[in-house]
Amino acid sequence: MHRQSIKQMVVDMATRAKKASRSLAVLPTALKNQVLLQAAEMLMEEYAFIEKENNRDLAAGREKGLSAAMLDRLELSEKVLRSMVTGLREVAALPDPVGEVTGMKRLPSGITVGRMRIPLGVVGMIYESRPNVTIDAAALCLKAGNGILLRGGSEAIYSNLVLAKILQNVLTSAKVDPAVVQVIPVPDREAVNHMLALDDLLDVIIPRGGEGLIRFVTENSRIPVLKHYKGVCHAYVDQDADVDMGVRIVMNSKTQRPGVCNALEGLLVHRDIAGTFLPVVAEKLMKQGVELRGCTRSCSLAPTMIPAKETDWGTEFLDLILAVRVVDSMDEAMAYITRYGSQHTETIITNSYHRSQKFLREVDASAVMINASTRFNDGGQFGLGAEIGISTTKLHAYGPMGLEELTTRKFIVYGEGEVRK
Amino acid sequence: MHRQSIKQMVVDMATRAKKASRSLAVLPTALKNQVLLQAAEMLMEEYAFIEKENNRDLAAGREKGLSAAMLDRLELSEKVLRSMVTGLREVAALPDPVGEVTGMKRLPSGITVGRMRIPLGVVGMIYESRPNVTIDAAALCLKAGNGILLRGGSEAIYSNLVLAKILQNVLTSAKVDPAVVQVIPVPDREAVNHMLALDDLLDVIIPRGGEGLIRFVTENSRIPVLKHYKGVCHAYVDQDADVDMGVRIVMNSKTQRPGVCNALEGLLVHRDIAGTFLPVVAEKLMKQGVELRGCTRSCSLAPTMIPAKETDWGTEFLDLILAVRVVDSMDEAMAYITRYGSQHTETIITNSYHRSQKFLREVDASAVMINASTRFNDGGQFGLGAEIGISTTKLHAYGPMGLEELTTRKFIVYGEGEVRK
Repeated sequence: MHRQSIKQMVVDMATRAKKASRSLAVLPTALKNQVLLQAAEMLMEEYAFIEKENNRDLAAGREKGLSAAMLDRLELSEKVLRSMVTGLREVAALPDPVGEVTGMKRLPSGITVGRMRIPLGVVGMIYESRPNVTIDAAALCLKAGNGILLRGGSEAIYSNLVLAKILQNVLTSAKVDPAVVQVIPVPDREAVNHMLALDDLLDVIIPRGGEGLIRFVTENSRIPVLKHYKGVCHAYVDQDADVDMGVRIVMNSKTQRPGVCNALEGLLVHRDIAGTFLPVVAEKLMKQGVELRGCTRSCSLAPTMIPAKETDWGTEFLDLILAVRVVDSMDEAMAYITRYGSQHTETIITNSYHRSQKFLREVDASAVMINASTRFNDGGQFGLGAEIGISTTKLHAYGPMGLEELTTRKFIVYGEGEVRK
Repeated sequence: MHRQSIKQMVVDMATRAKKASRSLAVLPTALKNQVLLQAAEMLMEEYAFIEKENNRDLAAGREKGLSAAMLDRLELSEKVLRSMVTGLREVAALPDPVGEVTGMKRLPSGITVGRMRIPLGVVGMIYESRPNVTIDAAALCLKAGNGILLRGGSEAIYSNLVLAKILQNVLTSAKVDPAVVQVIPVPDREAVNHMLALDDLLDVIIPRGGEGLIRFVTENSRIPVLKHYKGVCHAYVDQDADVDMGVRIVMNSKTQRPGVCNALEGLLVHRDIAGTFLPVVAEKLMKQGVELRGCTRSCSLAPTMIPAKETDWGTEFLDLILAVRVVDSMDEAMAYITRYGSQHTETIITNSYHRSQKFLREVDASAVMINASTRFNDGGQFGLGAEIGISTTKLHAYGPMGLEELTTRKFIVYGEGEVRK
């Protein structure tokens, strides 16, 4: 496909999505839920077809020499199918955010003013290898009344297209315009560039993938982008911490799933507790295969540590590696977090009321925790039901984004003929 | 100043603002209010100095041949001074949004999760001639705990700098880092370009001015932009409308202040009431000097109208001109609004319960009204206390933006040692 026609295709798809999103915005909740539940049924019924298309992607991936980890992310196994089906049913069961009216107040002029929650319009989703994101993201967008234009990775193109096709068939039989869910069939950078220019048609861009992709999207988009680049999360063990609790939280934060954005990357320990705490936690972490890279003081207290290099501070290892530093005070810990953190998740382990409150108030991150594992920063764990991503920029959403973050609020006014004086 | 040094200056100012904003974010409410009230006092004390600097701008403006309207906007008269002083006091009296905690819930894992309202960080404000915006915007940002980097128009540079200087002196004597309010002293496009690239230092850009400026900012910014291009507002007079009420609302919406974004630009009238309504409203509007540009049916009912041209539909006249169209149904009116509106303000005049609710739900605009003047779409009129602007894009804010819209929410977690299973 040559350049002009790719551009025209993207514009046409976005135009249809925008138009279709207008009727979706006012679709009754029951009908949206029916579509989601029907889609869950169809995914199971059509699994043979899904598997066939997924195999085309897998075969191409093997030919291209994709790593085992990438092929694993690409595979729509029965387990992944079940998680998509469960996801659809869970989203159907969530309360519909659209139409909620809040804050209605009668004002001195006589008018009554409040806000009504409404969909954003059309979400542009740009993602990499996992094809199950197609279903998860579409489900959340549909429930929140948004159209979605998806541009997945080229290695998952047949899988993404078959999943979208199944959703579109369900939409059509429910008499909903199927243009509310579309996958761009030409998954190259060119198509991304065209998407990012359509600020009249797309209301928000959500990129999910590596830092390179997300930086590219942010730097080239005219449309607001909801994103996080990375998660460099810290635990600060205060002088008043319970040692057992500190060990438990650090172990869980670091080792429960080290390859994700809410895993622990840096451990800060107050000097007064370091002599007690560090040898214990170091031994346990080492037993789990975690490599510890410590400051001079840390290494002298737990000699199995490797001396940290300057580049270890603030690094997102996404692996069984942890940077460790002894600090003289909580202020030093908070200054470190400001300098090296990524505004994702920060936790304090303490029994001091005063310092727990100060940490909670003063640390700037999408989730700030007292005596809890960083691994809790997740839409499901925070009670949002599901998440379409995490934002570490502050506009519109900060932290996990669920259905509410896929909506906005308009002002509504009830009058009886009032005019402005 | 050559290019490299302008860039360095903007980066340095934004860096200082970011650093200073961190301590401002946790400043006690009482201290923020003290600064605002003290600034009100100092504006009055220093009025002679303000007037002197403002006269430099006015003299330069006359020399450059600025229009009387532009010179009027530029002038810091005693009346404008009083409005700035009142504004500062009103913002001081508003409740502090920072620190509010909402939605705390104990979840199945045992953690208690909710959200705490926090400042955005640093606001970049790009505006044109009115120097009083310097004080109004800085006051709202300070109260919401945000630093602000202001880039005003070149024609108001001496006025903007003296106003910022006064605020900075007050901040310094209250021991607050004065870098939380800064005016860029080189007010050219170059400086704007540099601001728009600083996505690590500025959290949001708010442009205020003509559509050209706002488009330039949106197209060139890597930072989220809160803005509206224009206000093409409509009133739809339903077949069940009370004629007197309709006339009153249309008159007020169009003529009370025709040059602003929430003034009426288009009137849609149901065919069943057009014969009664249009002759009456046309006569009243004409008496107030309003030029009416109507569709064929409108012109036949009120022959004093001029036939509308295609370009009149959806035009922001900002003047005593009104486009008028007879429609066959509310659906036609809503389709017209979707096509020609600017998602600013839309009002229905009706006595039908069913249609009032349908209009409220289905029309997509930052404010949707029943039986009220479009002129009410304003932060003060909606009870926000004050506004820093209006947004007609849906991310983060839709409609007038007050203190709450200058903040965001982070997740906070209270635990007792919980870890993720």
